[in-house]
Amino acid sequence: MQHALITHIASALLAVGASAADPLPSWNDTAPKQALTAFVDRVTKEGTADFVPVPERIAVFDNDGTLWSEQPMYFQAFFIFDRIKALAPQHPEWKNQEPFASVLKGDIKTALAGGEKALLEMAMATHAGMTTEEFEKIVSDWISTAKHPKTGRLYTEMVYQPMLEVLAYLRANGFKTFIVSGGGIEFMRPWAEKVYGVPPEQVVGSSIKTKYEIRDGKPVIVRLPELNFIDDKEGKPVGIQQHIGRRPVMAFGNSDGDFQMLEWTTGGNGPRFGMIIHHTDTDREWAYDRDSHIGKLDKGLDEASKRGWTVADMKADWKTIYPKQPQSQP
Amino acid sequence: MQHALITHIASALLAVGASAADPLPSWNDTAPKQALTAFVDRVTKEGTADFVPVPERIAVFDNDGTLWSEQPMYFQAFFIFDRIKALAPQHPEWKNQEPFASVLKGDIKTALAGGEKALLEMAMATHAGMTTEEFEKIVSDWISTAKHPKTGRLYTEMVYQPMLEVLAYLRANGFKTFIVSGGGIEFMRPWAEKVYGVPPEQVVGSSIKTKYEIRDGKPVIVRLPELNFIDDKEGKPVGIQQHIGRRPVMAFGNSDGDFQMLEWTTGGNGPRFGMIIHHTDTDREWAYDRDSHIGKLDKGLDEASKRGWTVADMKADWKTIYPKQPQSQP
Repeated sequence: MQHALITHIASALLAVGASAADPLPSWNDTAPKQALTAFVDRVTKEGTADFVPVPERIAVFDNDGTLWSEQPMYFQAFFIFDRIKALAPQHPEWKNQEPFASVLKGDIKTALAGGEKALLEMAMATHAGMTTEEFEKIVSDWISTAKHPKTGRLYTEMVYQPMLEVLAYLRANGFKTFIVSGGGIEFMRPWAEKVYGVPPEQVVGSSIKTKYEIRDGKPVIVRLPELNFIDDKEGKPVGIQQHIGRRPVMAFGNSDGDFQMLEWTTGGNGPRFGMIIHHTDTDREWAYDRDSHIGKLDKGLDEASKRGWTVADMKADWKTIYPKQPQSQP
Repeated sequence: MQHALITHIASALLAVGASAADPLPSWNDTAPKQALTAFVDRVTKEGTADFVPVPERIAVFDNDGTLWSEQPMYFQAFFIFDRIKALAPQHPEWKNQEPFASVLKGDIKTALAGGEKALLEMAMATHAGMTTEEFEKIVSDWISTAKHPKTGRLYTEMVYQPMLEVLAYLRANGFKTFIVSGGGIEFMRPWAEKVYGVPPEQVVGSSIKTKYEIRDGKPVIVRLPELNFIDDKEGKPVGIQQHIGRRPVMAFGNSDGDFQMLEWTTGGNGPRFGMIIHHTDTDREWAYDRDSHIGKLDKGLDEASKRGWTVADMKADWKTIYPKQPQSQP
C-alpha cells in the first residue's frame, strides 16, 4: 500500500511537470495540431469511454518523408552509393559491372535505371557480408559525417522539428513510439535513439537474413545477402503484428507506402488517429505528391477525408521544418 | 528545469517505495540469489565502471521450463491436441489420417512418433487459416480454461513464483524484460502481459507467415500455413537481434536450446549475467536434464561453470515452485 501511494504521488507530480508548456511549439495553431491534441486529450482522460490504457498506447511512424526528408532520393540510397565508392578498391570488377560502374562514375541516373533489381543488388553488396556489430559501426560513422548534397546538413539534421515534438509529446502522454519504415532496420537503429528517442527495440524495418556463428572463439551475427522482410505497403501491418503484436492507436505516414499501415491502425475499434504529412513546401523542403517517384502520395490524398485521416500541410501547418543547426547556435 | 526537478523527486520517491522489502522472497538465501542481486546492484550503481544505463538494461527469458513448466510435454502441444479435437468435426478425413487419427484416439505417443514433421503438420493445421484476432481469441479461451493433466491447475498457474519475482525485481531496477522462446509468438502474447507483466511487443518467439488483406471491407491479418522463423538454438540470438536490436545484459534459460542465447548475451563486453534453471525437484515439479526428451540440458551443465553462468537448483534454491492457487486462498 505504501508503495502504491508513493507511485500515485509520483505520477501526479510527473503529470504536473508535463503539462507546463505548449508541447508542439513548431506547429501552427491550425486544424492538424488541434485534431492531434484533441485526440490525445480524449484517449488519456480516465473514466471516459474513449480512455486508452497506457499499455495500449502504441503510435507508429513511417521514417522517410515522415520523420526526415527523402529527396532527391532516400537517404539510405546515398549511404549505398557512398559504400560502393568506399568498397570499390576491394572490387576491381565493379568498374565494368553495372549498376556499380555507373555509381563509380557518378552517374546515379543510369545506376538506378535498372529499377528495383539494381537497387537490391547494390544493397546486398553493401549491407551484407559483415557482422551486425561491424555494420552498426559503418552506419554510425557514415551518419555522423556524410552531408546532404543540397542542404549541406548532416542527414540527422534533416529530421522534422514538428515531428520530434510529436514524438516527445506522445511519449509524455504514455505512448510508446515505434518507427515502421521501408528502410533497413539496422540502418536506422544506430541513430534512432539519439535522434528520435526511439530505442532499437522499437524500430521496425526491412531486413536481410542473418546467421549466428562463432568466429575466432567469439559469437557473432553475420549479415547474409538474402532478403528477409520488406516492410512496405501490405508489409507494414505484417511487420507491426510481428514486432509489436497489437494494433496501434495512432499512425503517421506520408506516402501510399503507408496506406495499409494507416488503414490497419484506424480500422480498429475505439478511438484511432491517422495523419498524413503532405509535402507542399518548395521553399523550405520539397513539394511532391501524386507524380513523385519517391514518396508518391495519390490514393492517400484521395481517401484521407473519407477515412477520417488528418492531412498536415507542411507549408501551412509547420512553423519550422528542421531543427536549428547546432553550429548556428550562439 | 522545473519539469526535470519534479521528475527527479518523483524518481527518488519511486526508488524508496521499491526498495522496501526483499524482492525475491521465494528464493533461498543461497548462491544463485546472491549472485543475481549482487549483479543487479553492481550494474545499477551510478558512477562506477560497471554501471549500465537504463536503455541498455535488457533481460531475456526463455519461457518453457524457465518461466513455466514444460512436462510431460510443451504446454503448446496440449493446445495443439485440444485444437485437433475441437476441429475434428470439420475434418472427417482426420479419422484415417496420421498423426491426427492417433490424437483423436488419445494415443499421443503414436501421434508424436512422426517426430518434428508430424508436430509441424499438426501445428500448421491448428495455428493457420484464421485471422490474428481470431487466433488470439482461441488462445485466450483455451488458456483460461484448459487444465494440466497431472496438477489439475490452469497452465498459467504453473508459472514459477521465483521467476515472477525475478521479472518484477529486474523491472523495478530499470530492466526491460523480454521473453525469447521457441514457442509460438502469438501463442504467448495473449496472456504474457497479465501473467508475466511482459507486453506483446516484448515477446519473441517462433512464427508462421502472415498476410494483410481486406475481408468484407475490413482489414485483417491472415495466418498462413508456412513457417516464418524458428526461435530456438542458433535462432535465439538471431531473433534477439531482429526484434530487440541490441545484445542483452542478462539471460535466463533452462535447456541446451538456450545455449546460444546465453552465449551471445554473456559474450558481450562489460558485465553480463547468465542463469540456467536446473530441474531437480521430483516432488514439487520434475527432475530432468541430460537425457530428457523435452528441455534437454547437457552441454549447458558441462559448460556453465567455465562460462560463469549461474545454475539455480530448483530443489535447493527455490522455497516455492508455483504461485499460491487463487482458489486455495482464504
